[in-house]
Amino acid sequence: MSYRALEEHFRRIARLEHLDAIASWDEAAMMPAGGGEARAEALATLKTLIHAETSSPKVGEWLARAEAEQGQLDSWQRANLREVKSGYVRATAVPPELVEAAALANSKSEQAWRKLRPQNDWQSFQPLLTEVVRLQREVAAALADRLGLGPYDALLDGYEPGGRTAHIAPLFAELSAALPDLIARTMERQARAPAVSLAGTFPVEAQRQLGLALMKQLGFDFEHGRLDTSHHPFCGGVPQDVRITTRYDESDVLSALLGVLHETGHAKYEQHRPAAYVDQPVGRARSMSLHESQSLLLEMQVCRSREFAQFLAPRLAQSFPEVPGGAEAVFSTENLARVLTRVRPDYIRVEADELTYPCHIVLRFEIERALIAGKLEVKDIPELWDSEMQRLLGLSTAGDYEDGCMQDVHWPAGLFGYFPTYTLGAMTAAQLFQAARRALPGLGSAIASGDLSGLDGWLDEHVWSQGCLLETPELVRSATGAPLGTGAFLSHLRRRYLGED
Amino acid sequence: MSYRALEEHFRRIARLEHLDAIASWDEAAMMPAGGGEARAEALATLKTLIHAETSSPKVGEWLARAEAEQGQLDSWQRANLREVKSGYVRATAVPPELVEAAALANSKSEQAWRKLRPQNDWQSFQPLLTEVVRLQREVAAALADRLGLGPYDALLDGYEPGGRTAHIAPLFAELSAALPDLIARTMERQARAPAVSLAGTFPVEAQRQLGLALMKQLGFDFEHGRLDTSHHPFCGGVPQDVRITTRYDESDVLSALLGVLHETGHAKYEQHRPAAYVDQPVGRARSMSLHESQSLLLEMQVCRSREFAQFLAPRLAQSFPEVPGGAEAVFSTENLARVLTRVRPDYIRVEADELTYPCHIVLRFEIERALIAGKLEVKDIPELWDSEMQRLLGLSTAGDYEDGCMQDVHWPAGLFGYFPTYTLGAMTAAQLFQAARRALPGLGSAIASGDLSGLDGWLDEHVWSQGCLLETPELVRSATGAPLGTGAFLSHLRRRYLGED
Repeated sequence: MSYRALEEHFRRIARLEHLDAIASWDEAAMMPAGGGEARAEALATLKTLIHAETSSPKVGEWLARAEAEQGQLDSWQRANLREVKSGYVRATAVPPELVEAAALANSKSEQAWRKLRPQNDWQSFQPLLTEVVRLQREVAAALADRLGLGPYDALLDGYEPGGRTAHIAPLFAELSAALPDLIARTMERQARAPAVSLAGTFPVEAQRQLGLALMKQLGFDFEHGRLDTSHHPFCGGVPQDVRITTRYDESDVLSALLGVLHETGHAKYEQHRPAAYVDQPVGRARSMSLHESQSLLLEMQVCRSREFAQFLAPRLAQSFPEVPGGAEAVFSTENLARVLTRVRPDYIRVEADELTYPCHIVLRFEIERALIAGKLEVKDIPELWDSEMQRLLGLSTAGDYEDGCMQDVHWPAGLFGYFPTYTLGAMTAAQLFQAARRALPGLGSAIASGDLSGLDGWLDEHVWSQGCLLETPELVRSATGAPLGTGAFLSHLRRRYLGED
Repeated sequence: MSYRALEEHFRRIARLEHLDAIASWDEAAMMPAGGGEARAEALATLKTLIHAETSSPKVGEWLARAEAEQGQLDSWQRANLREVKSGYVRATAVPPELVEAAALANSKSEQAWRKLRPQNDWQSFQPLLTEVVRLQREVAAALADRLGLGPYDALLDGYEPGGRTAHIAPLFAELSAALPDLIARTMERQARAPAVSLAGTFPVEAQRQLGLALMKQLGFDFEHGRLDTSHHPFCGGVPQDVRITTRYDESDVLSALLGVLHETGHAKYEQHRPAAYVDQPVGRARSMSLHESQSLLLEMQVCRSREFAQFLAPRLAQSFPEVPGGAEAVFSTENLARVLTRVRPDYIRVEADELTYPCHIVLRFEIERALIAGKLEVKDIPELWDSEMQRLLGLSTAGDYEDGCMQDVHWPAGLFGYFPTYTLGAMTAAQLFQAARRALPGLGSAIASGDLSGLDGWLDEHVWSQGCLLETPELVRSATGAPLGTGAFLSHLRRRYLGED
């Protein structure tokens, strides 16, 4: 049976991907610098092999025959076939010479960016990014042709299967209409009741121990995962052995901790992928926006809530009894809740708070769509960036490329269509959490006592155990009773930041 | 040119082996228990792939053509061809069904052994080991047929290319004739001047810091390697990124430290493999005995010497100032030198001192040769083990299987022909060190000041940089001026343990 042959083939690919995941984690978390060149070569060889196996003509033949056998397959197997097929179509849609040329341009541009960004040198970087965009337009065209999508959607679909501009643009327009006013009123309100800053020195080992204790409390399975340190925090590894990382700053007690909680949200999704299909495409996490929804649900919806502040405050006081200002005052529930929801428009996306973050995404979504459509050229990015930052966040970035349009790795690395998934994730998190609260009446007090078992059961049933059985829009509808919208997210923001119910 | 195609092919294999090495290190040093099953599957898939690439018919064709082009190759390339060929011949000599049957029997037997050894249950284990031996006899016969060697030598050749019973047996006979008397006289001598035991509690972190400082002092390159913890210490990773491990016992200050020094010897050999051929078979470490010679040269010849005790004693005193008995007395050069060379016949090979260790090997060499030759059956091992332990070390193991013939993982795992390389390594270490001392007149005082730069230069020139350019016997002859013998080793033992010059 051709379907069985496909399953066996993708089981083997999953085992190769296992090695990719662990060696990549090691590169970021363990490897000494001198091992870098050999590691890069080893990983490139493995990735080439995985790509060759995924796009092998054998897969195409098995697919054609398995589709004729669909009547003998159950719903998981049919969904698996759909996922195998979409991966195969994407992997074979772009001519290999173009894949290689784009990979080379991306790699050159990303390497140059690492040097030129700290020098604020847009002039030198511009031609490299221009070449990246030129090739991404070609890639988009090849994919669009094969997939029957618009060019930008064809790229977006690689990160967010089923994601479409026609759906996303109106949602983002709603956010971009509502947020500036919401931000202004929040700033005004917070100025009247300022938080006491959490200043002091917070030893790494105490931060790490508290992070580990919270991971355990919140359901991270240490039989199937670890916490380590890396320059850029991430969630890697494999479902059976999830590796999350953070980085510590001894002058900041919350950044590593909230990073750990964010990655724990990603990790729990991975640890709960459907066991029977864990090595098949249908057993993967559904999409980037769903993945981000799980990290944001834990970090933003749960852990920055007043209820969780009540749980966390005494634990912080216990871990850092010597904090200036006195642990009881500084780590009161009230003050901690204020610190966890402090809003301040800033230039840098990765440091943005929950309320201003979507503005950074709306801006990037607009620019990258125009770039791929050929309606904007690379040289004109800074001007548009500046005017949109002024409109959305009241900040000018004129002449500041480092903290303006050069701040992210995504475009230098050729990743177009990735940014919207962050805010789709935030919206999905709010909508899922709203549905979970409806289904679980005691959820608020459970969170105040650090008990996520009810919430985890709900998420497992509606999201984690579902893998890729449904497509993203159907999964969201099935879990929450409605298609993805801005309603739950905006309600959440108004409730949290303006006290409106 | 077919030679170039072979180089490219083996470069790719080296990159796959890189991933095997790192994922295997991770399994032992980092992985949580729940990741074990998925990791085993991933590694099995990778090993199958590496085996298929190594034994691919393409390699056979390229080899045949490259051998006709030998006139165009330099000496390194010709040696590379020889190494590729011997690997190919071994990889294709045994029918795949037999390889698989043997792997399965080995795996079953090793797993059973982990349970049955602590229960001293030889009766249950015997049939499993019998099956392992039956299949290893078949493997040996297939290899012997192809290689034109005797069956035992055909297995030995897999660990020690060029190693032959006809050479080793007389050397081991010399050791086995000399050692019982040497041990008896040493015991008597040491009873007259006993060492003060290093009792106390030695915190792990202080042990680790001292280990790291010594690694650095002795030339381990931390830009290309790390030290971690695992249940069984080993040296893994890749030449560009060597991973060594140890395990700590807070009641024993020397076991982890000497383990670290031993693995540092292995690591330096790996870190100095010839850069131009590091991803080719000719760039590998020469053989198991050469590898062991490098760990034993550092641990036994250098670090257990009186000169090094002079360097190490004040550092131990500084790291553990609170030791019972007083750091100055317990960590005096004199007492430390005695502790480092204490001799006591015991049942367990891995805990044996330098002087009694070869007796454990002589015994195993004799038994495994007889097993493979069909002159001994598994059921008769315990009796022979007991009589040989009595003859060589004056200890009876009657009824004690756990600490007798069931103590090592090698036979349960199907590794026959491996044991002699330990003692060949000890002999090679002594002979190399003797030659180095001749070439480097100030070596003793350099060691007393912790300076191994001169020794490392000599080893790099004569061993490390040579890879597999020469075969083992030629390498030893070229480095030391003589074929491998027992002379240097026995002189060293007589000098160190009896004070005879």
